[in-house]
Amino acid sequence: MVVYGDIQSGNCFKVKLLLSLLDIEHEWRVVDVVAKETQTKEFLALSPKGKIPIVVLDDGKVLSESNAILGYFAEQSDLLPHDRFEKAKVYEWLFFEQYSHEPYIAVARFINKYLGMPREREAEYESLQAGGHSALAIMEKQLNETSFLVGSQLSIADLSLYAYTHVAHEGGFDLSQYPAVLGWIERIQTLPNYIGME
Amino acid sequence: MVVYGDIQSGNCFKVKLLLSLLDIEHEWRVVDVVAKETQTKEFLALSPKGKIPIVVLDDGKVLSESNAILGYFAEQSDLLPHDRFEKAKVYEWLFFEQYSHEPYIAVARFINKYLGMPREREAEYESLQAGGHSALAIMEKQLNETSFLVGSQLSIADLSLYAYTHVAHEGGFDLSQYPAVLGWIERIQTLPNYIGME
Repeated sequence: MVVYGDIQSGNCFKVKLLLSLLDIEHEWRVVDVVAKETQTKEFLALSPKGKIPIVVLDDGKVLSESNAILGYFAEQSDLLPHDRFEKAKVYEWLFFEQYSHEPYIAVARFINKYLGMPREREAEYESLQAGGHSALAIMEKQLNETSFLVGSQLSIADLSLYAYTHVAHEGGFDLSQYPAVLGWIERIQTLPNYIGME
Repeated sequence: MVVYGDIQSGNCFKVKLLLSLLDIEHEWRVVDVVAKETQTKEFLALSPKGKIPIVVLDDGKVLSESNAILGYFAEQSDLLPHDRFEKAKVYEWLFFEQYSHEPYIAVARFINKYLGMPREREAEYESLQAGGHSALAIMEKQLNETSFLVGSQLSIADLSLYAYTHVAHEGGFDLSQYPAVLGWIERIQTLPNYIGME
Protein backbone atom coordinates (compact mmCIF):
# COMPACT_ATOMS: atom_id res chain seq x y z
CA MET A 1 0.00 0.00 0.00
CA VAL A 2 1.31 3.41 -0.95
CA VAL A 3 0.16 6.72 0.53
CA TYR A 4 0.94 9.89 -1.41
CA GLY A 5 1.12 12.91 0.84
CA ASP A 6 2.90 15.82 2.46
CA ILE A 7 3.19 15.45 6.23
CA GLN A 8 2.93 19.23 6.67
CA SER A 9 -0.55 19.16 5.16
CA GLY A 10 -3.10 18.43 7.88
CA ASN A 11 -5.20 16.42 5.44
CA CYS A 12 -2.23 14.12 4.83
CA PHE A 13 -0.96 14.16 8.40
CA LYS A 14 -4.30 12.90 9.73
CA VAL A 15 -3.95 9.79 7.56
CA LYS A 16 -0.34 9.23 8.69
CA LEU A 17 -1.39 9.65 12.34
CA LEU A 18 -4.22 7.12 11.97
CA LEU A 19 -1.92 4.60 10.27
CA SER A 20 0.56 5.04 13.11
CA LEU A 21 -2.06 4.66 15.86
CA LEU A 22 -3.44 1.53 14.18
CA ASP A 23 0.08 0.30 13.34
CA ILE A 24 -0.73 -0.23 9.66
CA GLU A 25 2.30 -0.75 7.43
CA HIS A 26 2.56 1.45 4.35
CA GLU A 27 4.94 3.20 2.03
CA TRP A 28 4.77 7.03 2.23
CA ARG A 29 5.61 8.94 -0.95
CA VAL A 30 6.20 12.63 -0.55
CA VAL A 31 4.33 14.90 -2.98
CA ASP A 32 5.02 18.64 -3.21
CA VAL A 33 1.81 20.58 -3.87
CA VAL A 34 3.48 23.97 -4.25
CA ALA A 35 5.75 22.47 -6.94
CA LYS A 36 2.53 21.24 -8.64
CA GLU A 37 3.46 17.56 -8.33
CA THR A 38 -0.27 16.81 -7.93
CA GLN A 39 -0.90 18.21 -11.44
CA THR A 40 1.41 15.92 -13.40
CA LYS A 41 -0.07 13.50 -15.92
CA GLU A 42 1.08 10.55 -13.80
CA PHE A 43 -0.55 11.85 -10.64
CA LEU A 44 -3.79 12.85 -12.37
CA ALA A 45 -4.01 9.32 -13.80
CA LEU A 46 -4.09 8.05 -10.22
CA SER A 47 -6.42 10.75 -8.95
CA PRO A 48 -8.28 13.00 -11.40
CA LYS A 49 -8.94 15.55 -8.64
CA GLY A 50 -5.22 16.25 -8.39
CA LYS A 51 -5.23 16.39 -4.61
CA ILE A 52 -3.38 14.69 -1.78
CA PRO A 53 -3.64 12.51 0.20
CA ILE A 54 -4.45 9.46 -1.84
CA VAL A 55 -3.98 5.81 -0.95
CA VAL A 56 -3.17 3.20 -3.58
CA LEU A 57 -4.13 -0.17 -2.15
CA ASP A 58 -2.21 -3.35 -2.94
CA ASP A 59 -4.75 -4.28 -5.62
CA GLY A 60 -4.24 -0.91 -7.32
CA LYS A 61 -7.53 0.62 -6.21
CA VAL A 62 -7.29 4.28 -5.25
CA LEU A 63 -8.97 6.18 -2.42
CA SER A 64 -8.96 9.95 -2.07
CA GLU A 65 -10.51 12.47 0.36
CA SER A 66 -8.68 12.34 3.69
CA ASN A 67 -11.77 11.74 5.80
CA ALA A 68 -13.03 8.93 3.56
CA ILE A 69 -9.59 7.35 3.94
CA LEU A 70 -9.85 7.65 7.73
CA GLY A 71 -13.26 5.94 7.59
CA TYR A 72 -11.87 3.14 5.45
CA PHE A 73 -9.04 2.28 7.82
CA ALA A 74 -11.01 2.85 11.01
CA GLU A 75 -14.00 0.74 9.94
CA GLN A 76 -12.77 -2.36 11.72
CA SER A 77 -11.21 -0.63 14.72
CA ASP A 78 -12.35 1.14 17.89
CA LEU A 79 -11.76 4.48 16.18
CA LEU A 80 -15.15 4.25 14.44
CA PRO A 81 -18.04 3.33 16.77
CA HIS A 82 -20.21 0.39 15.77
CA ASP A 83 -23.36 2.01 17.13
CA ARG A 84 -25.24 3.56 14.20
CA PHE A 85 -25.97 6.89 15.88
CA GLU A 86 -22.47 7.30 17.32
CA LYS A 87 -20.99 6.47 13.94
CA ALA A 88 -23.16 9.15 12.33
CA LYS A 89 -21.95 11.63 14.97
CA VAL A 90 -18.35 10.83 13.98
CA TYR A 91 -19.19 11.51 10.34
CA GLU A 92 -21.01 14.69 11.39
CA TRP A 93 -17.70 15.98 12.77
CA LEU A 94 -15.82 14.82 9.68
CA PHE A 95 -18.15 16.82 7.41
CA PHE A 96 -17.93 19.77 9.80
CA GLU A 97 -14.16 19.56 9.51
CA GLN A 98 -14.18 19.76 5.71
CA TYR A 99 -16.86 22.44 5.42
CA SER A 100 -16.56 24.66 8.48
CA HIS A 101 -13.01 24.21 9.82
CA GLU A 102 -10.51 23.33 7.10
CA PRO A 103 -11.56 26.06 4.60
CA TYR A 104 -10.77 28.67 7.27
CA ILE A 105 -7.99 27.34 9.48
CA ALA A 106 -6.08 25.29 6.89
CA VAL A 107 -6.35 27.96 4.22
CA ALA A 108 -5.18 30.73 6.58
CA ARG A 109 -2.26 28.53 7.59
CA PHE A 110 -1.47 27.78 3.94
CA ILE A 111 -1.40 31.48 3.06
CA ASN A 112 0.87 32.23 6.01
CA LYS A 113 3.11 29.19 6.24
CA TYR A 114 3.34 27.84 2.68
CA LEU A 115 3.00 31.05 0.70
CA GLY A 116 4.72 33.38 3.19
CA MET A 117 1.74 35.75 3.42
CA PRO A 118 1.86 37.47 0.03
CA ARG A 119 0.36 40.95 0.15
CA GLU A 120 -2.38 40.09 -2.39
CA ARG A 121 -3.77 37.44 -0.07
CA GLU A 122 -3.67 39.42 3.18
CA ALA A 123 -7.32 40.46 2.93
CA GLU A 124 -8.39 36.86 2.32
CA TYR A 125 -6.28 35.76 5.31
CA GLU A 126 -8.03 38.29 7.52
CA SER A 127 -11.44 37.26 6.21
CA LEU A 128 -10.80 33.66 7.27
CA GLN A 129 -10.25 34.44 10.94
CA ALA A 130 -13.92 34.75 11.95
CA GLY A 131 -14.91 31.42 10.39
CA GLY A 132 -11.97 29.67 12.02
CA HIS A 133 -12.88 31.03 15.43
CA SER A 134 -16.50 29.92 14.95
CA ALA A 135 -15.29 26.39 14.28
CA LEU A 136 -12.97 26.44 17.31
CA ALA A 137 -15.80 27.73 19.51
CA ILE A 138 -18.02 24.82 18.45
CA MET A 139 -15.24 22.37 19.29
CA GLU A 140 -14.65 24.10 22.65
CA LYS A 141 -18.35 23.78 23.50
CA GLN A 142 -18.31 20.05 22.78
CA LEU A 143 -15.00 19.41 24.55
CA ASN A 144 -16.32 21.13 27.65
CA GLU A 145 -18.97 18.42 27.75
CA THR A 146 -17.06 15.32 26.64
CA SER A 147 -13.39 14.38 26.68
CA PHE A 148 -13.39 13.54 22.98
CA LEU A 149 -15.59 14.91 20.21
CA VAL A 150 -17.95 11.94 20.29
CA GLY A 151 -18.22 10.94 23.95
CA SER A 152 -15.41 9.58 26.08
CA GLN A 153 -13.80 7.47 23.37
CA LEU A 154 -11.19 8.61 20.85
CA SER A 155 -12.43 8.37 17.25
CA ILE A 156 -11.39 9.48 13.79
CA ALA A 157 -13.45 12.63 14.44
CA ASP A 158 -10.72 13.65 16.88
CA LEU A 159 -7.85 12.74 14.55
CA SER A 160 -9.43 14.65 11.69
CA LEU A 161 -10.08 17.81 13.68
CA TYR A 162 -6.78 17.56 15.51
CA ALA A 163 -4.76 17.75 12.30
CA TYR A 164 -5.27 21.44 11.55
CA THR A 165 -6.32 22.48 15.07
CA HIS A 166 -3.00 21.69 16.72
CA VAL A 167 -1.22 23.93 14.22
CA ALA A 168 -3.94 26.59 14.07
CA HIS A 169 -1.51 29.17 15.50
CA GLU A 170 0.34 28.96 12.17
CA GLY A 171 -2.83 30.42 10.64
CA GLY A 172 -3.04 33.15 13.26
CA PHE A 173 -5.47 31.45 15.67
CA ASP A 174 -4.63 31.89 19.35
CA LEU A 175 -5.74 28.68 21.06
CA SER A 176 -5.27 30.01 24.60
CA GLN A 177 -8.90 31.15 24.37
CA TYR A 178 -9.94 27.50 24.08
CA PRO A 179 -8.80 25.65 27.20
CA ALA A 180 -10.92 22.55 26.53
CA VAL A 181 -9.40 22.30 23.06
CA LEU A 182 -5.90 22.62 24.57
CA GLY A 183 -6.63 19.81 27.04
CA TRP A 184 -7.89 17.61 24.21
CA ILE A 185 -4.74 18.32 22.15
CA GLU A 186 -2.67 17.13 25.09
CA ARG A 187 -4.73 13.95 25.44
CA ILE A 188 -4.11 13.16 21.78
CA GLN A 189 -0.40 13.93 21.97
CA THR A 190 0.08 11.40 24.77
CA LEU A 191 -1.58 8.51 22.91
CA PRO A 192 0.58 5.42 22.36
CA ASN A 193 2.10 5.49 18.86
CA TYR A 194 1.39 9.22 18.49
CA ILE A 195 3.46 10.91 15.83
CA GLY A 196 3.91 14.63 15.20
CA MET A 197 3.96 16.58 11.97
CA GLU A 198 7.71 16.53 11.56
CA MET B 1 -38.77 11.94 14.16
CA VAL B 2 -38.67 15.55 13.06
CA VAL B 3 -36.58 16.95 10.21
CA TYR B 4 -35.96 20.70 10.14
CA GLY B 5 -35.28 21.95 6.63
CA ASP B 6 -36.05 23.99 3.57
CA ILE B 7 -36.85 21.86 0.54
CA GLN B 8 -35.30 24.47 -1.79
CA SER B 9 -31.93 23.95 -0.11
CA GLY B 10 -30.12 21.06 -1.76
CA ASN B 11 -28.64 20.00 1.57
CA CYS B 12 -32.16 19.62 2.97
CA PHE B 13 -33.68 18.24 -0.21
CA LYS B 14 -31.18 15.38 -0.35
CA VAL B 15 -32.39 14.21 3.07
CA LYS B 16 -36.06 14.50 2.03
CA LEU B 17 -35.32 12.56 -1.16
CA LEU B 18 -33.57 9.77 0.76
CA LEU B 19 -36.42 9.51 3.26
CA SER B 20 -38.86 9.28 0.36
CA LEU B 21 -36.86 6.60 -1.50
CA LEU B 22 -36.53 4.55 1.69
CA ASP B 23 -40.13 5.30 2.67
CA ILE B 24 -39.20 6.50 6.15
CA GLU B 25 -41.97 8.35 7.99
CA HIS B 26 -41.07 11.74 9.43
CA GLU B 27 -42.42 15.16 10.27
CA TRP B 28 -40.92 17.95 8.14
CA ARG B 29 -40.68 21.39 9.77
CA VAL B 30 -39.95 24.28 7.43
CA VAL B 31 -37.14 26.61 8.52
CA ASP B 32 -36.43 29.89 6.70
CA VAL B 33 -32.68 30.58 6.59
CA VAL B 34 -32.97 34.02 4.98
CA ALA B 35 -35.34 35.08 7.81
CA LYS B 36 -32.61 33.84 10.20
CA GLU B 37 -34.80 31.15 11.77
CA THR B 38 -31.66 29.03 12.20
CA GLN B 39 -30.21 31.70 14.50
CA THR B 40 -32.96 31.79 17.13
CA LYS B 41 -32.21 30.69 20.68
CA GLU B 42 -34.55 27.70 20.29
CA PHE B 43 -32.90 26.49 17.11
CA LEU B 44 -29.36 26.99 18.39
CA ALA B 45 -30.27 24.93 21.47
CA LEU B 46 -31.03 22.04 19.09
CA SER B 47 -28.03 22.65 16.85
CA PRO B 48 -25.24 25.00 17.96
CA LYS B 49 -24.01 25.30 14.37
CA GLY B 50 -27.24 27.07 13.38
CA LYS B 51 -27.57 25.20 10.11
CA ILE B 52 -30.18 23.07 8.40
CA PRO B 53 -30.94 20.26 7.87
CA ILE B 54 -31.08 18.66 11.29
CA VAL B 55 -32.91 15.53 12.37
CA VAL B 56 -34.32 15.17 15.87
CA LEU B 57 -34.80 11.45 16.50
CA ASP B 58 -37.62 10.10 18.63
CA ASP B 59 -35.33 9.84 21.66
CA GLY B 60 -34.40 13.51 21.28
CA LYS B 61 -30.92 12.95 19.90
CA VAL B 62 -29.93 15.38 17.17
CA LEU B 63 -28.00 14.79 13.95
CA SER B 64 -26.69 17.55 11.69
CA GLU B 65 -24.60 17.69 8.48
CA SER B 66 -26.69 16.50 5.55
CA ASN B 67 -24.26 13.84 4.38
CA ALA B 68 -23.86 12.37 7.87
CA ILE B 69 -27.66 12.19 8.02
CA LEU B 70 -27.71 10.35 4.68
CA GLY B 71 -25.15 7.89 6.02
CA TYR B 72 -27.20 7.32 9.16
CA PHE B 73 -30.39 6.42 7.30
CA ALA B 74 -28.68 4.52 4.50
CA GLU B 75 -26.57 2.36 6.82
CA GLN B 76 -29.02 -0.53 6.79
CA SER B 77 -30.16 -0.19 3.17
CA ASP B 78 -28.80 -0.85 -0.31
CA LEU B 79 -27.96 2.82 -0.65
CA LEU B 80 -24.70 2.33 1.28
CA PRO B 81 -22.60 -0.62 0.09
CA HIS B 82 -21.54 -3.17 2.69
CA ASP B 83 -18.18 -3.74 1.02
CA ARG B 84 -15.57 -1.70 2.89
CA PHE B 85 -13.87 -0.24 -0.17
CA GLU B 86 -17.13 0.59 -1.97
CA LYS B 87 -18.44 2.24 1.18
CA ALA B 88 -15.30 4.36 1.37
CA LYS B 89 -15.82 5.36 -2.28
CA VAL B 90 -19.34 6.53 -1.41
CA TYR B 91 -17.93 8.66 1.42
CA GLU B 92 -15.21 9.92 -0.92
CA TRP B 93 -17.96 11.40 -3.11
CA LEU B 94 -19.79 12.78 -0.08
CA PHE B 95 -16.69 14.66 1.04
CA PHE B 96 -16.07 15.79 -2.53
CA GLU B 97 -19.62 17.15 -2.57
CA GLN B 98 -19.12 19.25 0.55
CA TYR B 99 -15.65 20.51 -0.30
CA SER B 100 -15.45 20.76 -4.09
CA HIS B 101 -19.04 20.98 -5.35
CA GLU B 102 -21.40 22.61 -2.86
CA PRO B 103 -19.19 25.66 -2.06
CA TYR B 104 -19.26 26.58 -5.76
CA ILE B 105 -22.55 25.40 -7.22
CA ALA B 106 -24.79 25.83 -4.17
CA VAL B 107 -23.29 29.18 -3.25
CA ALA B 108 -23.62 30.54 -6.82
CA ARG B 109 -27.24 29.37 -6.84
CA PHE B 110 -27.84 30.96 -3.43
CA ILE B 111 -26.49 34.31 -4.61
CA ASN B 112 -28.62 34.18 -7.75
CA LYS B 113 -31.82 32.52 -6.59
CA TYR B 114 -32.15 33.39 -2.89
CA LEU B 115 -30.48 36.78 -2.83
CA GLY B 116 -31.50 37.93 -6.34
CA MET B 117 -27.91 38.57 -7.44
CA PRO B 118 -27.05 41.71 -5.46
CA ARG B 119 -24.41 43.80 -7.23
CA GLU B 120 -21.91 43.47 -4.35
CA ARG B 121 -21.82 39.69 -4.79
CA GLU B 122 -21.54 39.59 -8.59
CA ALA B 123 -17.75 39.21 -8.54
CA GLU B 124 -18.00 36.36 -6.04
CA TYR B 125 -20.67 34.72 -8.22
CA GLU B 126 -18.37 34.90 -11.23
CA SER B 127 -15.43 33.55 -9.22
CA LEU B 128 -17.44 30.44 -8.32
CA GLN B 129 -18.05 29.36 -11.91
CA ALA B 130 -14.64 27.73 -12.55
CA GLY B 131 -14.76 25.61 -9.40
CA GLY B 132 -18.30 24.47 -10.18
CA HIS B 133 -17.31 23.41 -13.68
CA SER B 134 -14.30 21.50 -12.33
CA ALA B 135 -16.63 19.55 -10.05
CA LEU B 136 -19.07 18.84 -12.88
CA ALA B 137 -16.22 17.68 -15.12
CA ILE B 138 -15.09 15.19 -12.48
CA MET B 139 -18.65 13.84 -12.22
CA GLU B 140 -18.91 13.67 -16.03
CA LYS B 141 -15.68 11.65 -16.19
CA GLN B 142 -16.98 9.14 -13.66
CA LEU B 143 -20.47 8.90 -15.18
CA ASN B 144 -18.95 8.16 -18.56
CA GLU B 145 -17.47 5.06 -16.95
CA THR B 146 -20.24 3.91 -14.60
CA SER B 147 -23.99 4.49 -14.55
CA PHE B 148 -23.91 5.75 -10.96
CA LEU B 149 -21.08 7.46 -9.09
CA VAL B 150 -19.96 4.26 -7.38
CA GLY B 151 -20.47 1.50 -9.92
CA SER B 152 -23.78 0.34 -11.32
CA GLN B 153 -25.75 0.69 -8.11
CA LEU B 154 -27.50 3.82 -6.83
CA SER B 155 -26.05 5.05 -3.51
CA ILE B 156 -26.25 8.08 -1.27
CA ALA B 157 -23.29 9.46 -3.24
CA ASP B 158 -25.72 9.96 -6.13
CA LEU B 159 -28.45 11.50 -3.97
CA SER B 160 -25.99 13.88 -2.37
CA LEU B 161 -24.47 15.08 -5.64
CA TYR B 162 -27.82 15.11 -7.40
CA ALA B 163 -29.29 17.66 -4.98
CA TYR B 164 -27.39 20.73 -6.21
CA THR B 165 -26.42 19.33 -9.62
CA HIS B 166 -29.96 19.06 -10.97
CA VAL B 167 -30.55 22.75 -10.19
CA ALA B 168 -27.05 23.90 -11.16
CA HIS B 169 -28.52 26.04 -13.96
CA GLU B 170 -29.95 28.25 -11.21
CA GLY B 171 -26.34 29.04 -10.34
CA GLY B 172 -25.43 29.72 -13.96
CA PHE B 173 -24.04 26.29 -14.88
CA ASP B 174 -25.06 25.01 -18.32
CA LEU B 175 -25.36 21.23 -17.99
CA SER B 176 -25.67 20.59 -21.73
CA GLN B 177 -21.86 20.30 -21.74
CA TYR B 178 -22.20 17.25 -19.50
CA PRO B 179 -24.25 14.60 -21.31
CA ALA B 180 -23.34 11.78 -18.92
CA VAL B 181 -24.47 13.94 -15.99
CA LEU B 182 -27.75 14.66 -17.80
CA GLY B 183 -28.35 10.94 -18.37
CA TRP B 184 -27.68 10.24 -14.70
CA ILE B 185 -30.11 12.98 -13.65
CA GLU B 186 -32.77 11.30 -15.74
CA ARG B 187 -32.05 7.91 -14.17
CA ILE B 188 -32.51 9.40 -10.73
CA GLN B 189 -35.71 11.23 -11.67
CA THR B 190 -37.35 7.99 -12.78
CA LEU B 191 -36.66 6.11 -9.53
CA PRO B 192 -39.73 4.76 -7.70
CA ASN B 193 -40.75 7.20 -4.91
CA TYR B 194 -38.70 10.01 -6.46
CA ILE B 195 -39.76 13.46 -5.29
CA GLY B 196 -38.77 16.82 -6.74
CA MET B 197 -37.76 20.02 -5.00
CA GLU B 198 -41.24 21.56 -4.99
